[in-house]
Amino acid sequence: MADHNALPLVILAEKFASLPGIGMKSAQRLAYHVMSMDEASVRAFAQALIDAKKNVRCCKICQNLTEREVCPICSDDQRDSGTICVVEAPKDVTAFERTREYNGVYHVLHGLLSPMDGITPDKLRIRELLGRISGGGVREVIMATNPTVEGDATAMYVANLLKPLGVKVSRLAFGLPVGGMLEYADEVTLFKALENRNLL
Amino acid sequence: MADHNALPLVILAEKFASLPGIGMKSAQRLAYHVMSMDEASVRAFAQALIDAKKNVRCCKICQNLTEREVCPICSDDQRDSGTICVVEAPKDVTAFERTREYNGVYHVLHGLLSPMDGITPDKLRIRELLGRISGGGVREVIMATNPTVEGDATAMYVANLLKPLGVKVSRLAFGLPVGGMLEYADEVTLFKALENRNLL
Repeated sequence: MADHNALPLVILAEKFASLPGIGMKSAQRLAYHVMSMDEASVRAFAQALIDAKKNVRCCKICQNLTEREVCPICSDDQRDSGTICVVEAPKDVTAFERTREYNGVYHVLHGLLSPMDGITPDKLRIRELLGRISGGGVREVIMATNPTVEGDATAMYVANLLKPLGVKVSRLAFGLPVGGMLEYADEVTLFKALENRNLL
Repeated sequence: MADHNALPLVILAEKFASLPGIGMKSAQRLAYHVMSMDEASVRAFAQALIDAKKNVRCCKICQNLTEREVCPICSDDQRDSGTICVVEAPKDVTAFERTREYNGVYHVLHGLLSPMDGITPDKLRIRELLGRISGGGVREVIMATNPTVEGDATAMYVANLLKPLGVKVSRLAFGLPVGGMLEYADEVTLFKALENRNLL
């Protein structure tokens, strides 16, 4: 926005533009939209940002985002804690929960291996996953990373660490379109991929 | 987001989804992104929302958004206050300023006539425009609303109010693609439209 614009609006537009998938034009439009909201709504939005950052942390077991020390899925004794589905990000947990067919638990890696971008194994929550396995009681680990180069590489890397520990390691079936994004798969495709998982 | 998600994240995603052009899937992605930002950045974002709403108001002359009582364009004595370019929204002022070819001033209507949606003349800043004309010194009013049904209707309505006051009223040339949006026009097209404006 040019310098004739009010500075607080320019700053707000820059904040929106710093979010992924929002360009400067959309950001400007969003900033103007905020001006048309009533003050209480704007304050509620600002508070929601602060609350989410302050009150949400990683579950100490599965590393998914939660308000509690242990997330509702890990603390649900109806779920099979012997099966761990390993995913890249919290949004992937949401995708699996939508299938309503998976009754195991999860482990969120918070990223995929990508040495070119400096994402080495110590940057992911792999240590925490190994800790869960060595704690015993885990029969199977399902590698449910995206079917991309990084997703496959991460699945293979983690599988190679886990197999010596005597745990069954499987990979989602490639019912998913290769190169596609897990979170956009429909429920049926995702369930099929879960059902036809293959031993690594 | 399903109920296994942390509540503050669900609330934040709903806030994002309430913005124009952001669906629930993008909103969820943005909420997760906020979790990956450091706390200072999140606080700065929240503060930017509050500051924009609190410190930005309408210029008492042209009704554009500004931090001051009178905006920088209206208080700039290098600008020709005898020519007023009437636009729908503050983003259109930004579009004209980008051409660097217009040296007059603006008047922001904050909407277009749309009786079906309850937007009648009293909902727009038309009264303020008439006040400026009757104050004297205005030679020409350029109706620069979008070339859409509502934009044309508003231009005609305002022109019919202004012509009896003895002021020249013109309309942007239709170099703009009909049905398109002014804010997405490139600088050259917008400048041509300004140059070839026609008397109403």
